[in-house]
Amino acid sequence: MIKIGLLGFGTVGTGVYEIINNTENNLRILLNKEIEVSKILVSDINKKRNVVVSKDILTQDPLDILENPEIDIVVEVMGGIDKAYEYMCLAFKNNKHVVTANKAVVSKYIDKLLDLANKYDRGFLFEASVGGGIPIIKPLKQSARINNISNVRGILNGTTNFILTKMCDENLSFDEALNIAQELGYAEADPTDDIEGYDVKRKLAILSSIAFNNKTDVDSIMCRGISSINKVDIKMFKKLGLVSKLVGSAVSNDNNYSASVEPILLNENSTFTTVKDAFNIVSITGNVIGELQFYGQGAGKNPTANAVVSDIFDIVTGQYKRDDFVQNGKLISADIDLFKGRYYIRVSPSNKNDVSKILKLMDLDKLKYEILSMNEDLIVITDVINADKIEQFVSKLNILEKEYCYMRIEGDIMNLKYEAK
Amino acid sequence: MIKIGLLGFGTVGTGVYEIINNTENNLRILLNKEIEVSKILVSDINKKRNVVVSKDILTQDPLDILENPEIDIVVEVMGGIDKAYEYMCLAFKNNKHVVTANKAVVSKYIDKLLDLANKYDRGFLFEASVGGGIPIIKPLKQSARINNISNVRGILNGTTNFILTKMCDENLSFDEALNIAQELGYAEADPTDDIEGYDVKRKLAILSSIAFNNKTDVDSIMCRGISSINKVDIKMFKKLGLVSKLVGSAVSNDNNYSASVEPILLNENSTFTTVKDAFNIVSITGNVIGELQFYGQGAGKNPTANAVVSDIFDIVTGQYKRDDFVQNGKLISADIDLFKGRYYIRVSPSNKNDVSKILKLMDLDKLKYEILSMNEDLIVITDVINADKIEQFVSKLNILEKEYCYMRIEGDIMNLKYEAK
Repeated sequence: MIKIGLLGFGTVGTGVYEIINNTENNLRILLNKEIEVSKILVSDINKKRNVVVSKDILTQDPLDILENPEIDIVVEVMGGIDKAYEYMCLAFKNNKHVVTANKAVVSKYIDKLLDLANKYDRGFLFEASVGGGIPIIKPLKQSARINNISNVRGILNGTTNFILTKMCDENLSFDEALNIAQELGYAEADPTDDIEGYDVKRKLAILSSIAFNNKTDVDSIMCRGISSINKVDIKMFKKLGLVSKLVGSAVSNDNNYSASVEPILLNENSTFTTVKDAFNIVSITGNVIGELQFYGQGAGKNPTANAVVSDIFDIVTGQYKRDDFVQNGKLISADIDLFKGRYYIRVSPSNKNDVSKILKLMDLDKLKYEILSMNEDLIVITDVINADKIEQFVSKLNILEKEYCYMRIEGDIMNLKYEAK
Repeated sequence: MIKIGLLGFGTVGTGVYEIINNTENNLRILLNKEIEVSKILVSDINKKRNVVVSKDILTQDPLDILENPEIDIVVEVMGGIDKAYEYMCLAFKNNKHVVTANKAVVSKYIDKLLDLANKYDRGFLFEASVGGGIPIIKPLKQSARINNISNVRGILNGTTNFILTKMCDENLSFDEALNIAQELGYAEADPTDDIEGYDVKRKLAILSSIAFNNKTDVDSIMCRGISSINKVDIKMFKKLGLVSKLVGSAVSNDNNYSASVEPILLNENSTFTTVKDAFNIVSITGNVIGELQFYGQGAGKNPTANAVVSDIFDIVTGQYKRDDFVQNGKLISADIDLFKGRYYIRVSPSNKNDVSKILKLMDLDKLKYEILSMNEDLIVITDVINADKIEQFVSKLNILEKEYCYMRIEGDIMNLKYEAK
């Protein structure tokens, strides 16, 4: 009998509990072992719940799980950082395997947690921390054993992809789309982590750490969100045959890596633009395997719980291995032209005078551009430039207190439908 | 030291040999074990090869590998059916793990080979048999542990997808596209297995067996290829905003399953239509996980060899498990409306008289349809009908010795650009 202790009994925790109880018979046949959730850490035992669970297995004391000699696997689905990390460390020290869905902790402490898992010869699996139900961590680890991975990128946040899809397909404003996302439970009351790209940054740090065998510092990732995109932009993107997506990407060569989270403009016929609503996609490129893509539901109770339970099964069947391949300090964070490209820039000046002022600024910065629109909003597309050049220009717009939106255009520029001009 | 015996030293075998020798140092660190290819079965030891290999490890006698007590893992990459199957059986009986890329053998004998692997407590892995470099077998197994899989479908053949892409994007005829595929080495001198869908049938049988925990008989899969598609069809598809793809799909409910390989028409903006050239995609749908999609190179030396080596690593690190979940006889092959839908039909009559004859046939069969074109070719789109109805009609066209092409239209019919009429 394999005993599981759950830290947390929110959405994902409940999903894990339900799956294990529903598929129990199936499991016995497959695993030749029984498996049960025998303790669940909650903040209030007496809280009313939508799931039928015996009060005997609920506890408010983490040590009932972490120091319980009968528990084999600790599943951390409580969220937060410091406490969750502390509990995971204690679990390893008490010779327990750890499974988690917590991207904040994994991205911050992946090296320390893997070291602990190795030290105590336990499994540490975190498939659910990136891409919800998409199996990506495991295939990425397997690809990285054989390949030099040069590139990992993806649409990694369901909330922002839902908002962008609504804005694009139903002509909604950013605020309208965000409201719907909040009503449907896709976005939290404080949506900052999602819309400013912080959530993607954590997930990208995890992917990049595994892909490049090198811990990626979350803070080394350049990050911009989607809140500056408005209806005028969306209308112009459509005219241009482009679609905006919030994309996290990390690239690496022999000695460097570079990572960014930013809204980019993709051709209508690229695979990424077919990813709608709360779905996610991850693409990896290796020297032997070429490009692989993985698509599925990026969040939600069932898909995320599915990923957690899949990790539990891997531990029960011994299908985890020492993950000692995250080595620190080999790669250096550097600008290897990741953000080089043509940029879409929209500035909303208040009058004609402003327009000529802004165009003069561009000339001063030696930005080469084509003007797409000068009615109300000034919209230009630049020649291929480096990110530092665009940042330099944008900082001046900040000084002028102008509202603006800018975005790199990716893919074949020849496909631009220039009738927009 | 883990010793590997290769059965076959063609394209994939050479790739496996090269990967293991190139990543050797990496491997030692990861696995804490050494791994080497110590014997290779070839048909002619003295043949000139493009790869540097010591003659000492080549052999023309399969027993040098199959009965060699030093060999731990037998990798079958020789192709064919009977001999390959015989060698795999003998490998298990001599307590060796088996890894194969052979879809013909796996689709035909999956139940027997898994039984043998279980009996001798060895690993039997065949990731490379479907989807080339795409990791699909393993994620599918893992999903099937937790989910009831209702649906598995994919673009599973690189050659036909390459031909259809060329026909669509470069306005080539079927024969012109096939010739290019043959020149580039994508298609064999006798392309029948690819263009008639037999290759997809085998791959689909493997996927469906795992997805539904039930061996799918290859012969139970309805199968049509792409050779009847011509330039007139492609032109009309474009007008309709549709793209043709050769798709294998299998669906299941509680007691039945149904599987087909057929060219179908998809909306331009579906994910499958973004899969171009020799790339493959597989989609699976489970009750917990929802839909997952996996995309990558469906064939070729490196991707396929990558999948084989990944299986080898799983065996070396003990990450294989008893695959005793393929149970025979639970599901029955049945028509569960898989092929129901609107159909595109093009008939090439020789004169006006023929047109009215064919339209009368449709009326006789109570086929409801809209005529899209009556110049030279008669092109119609039917209302939603069952596959048996279309087969009934087509059999009459055969009697009349007419050239024709028909194809189910999938997806939202509302997206049809009806200006084609």
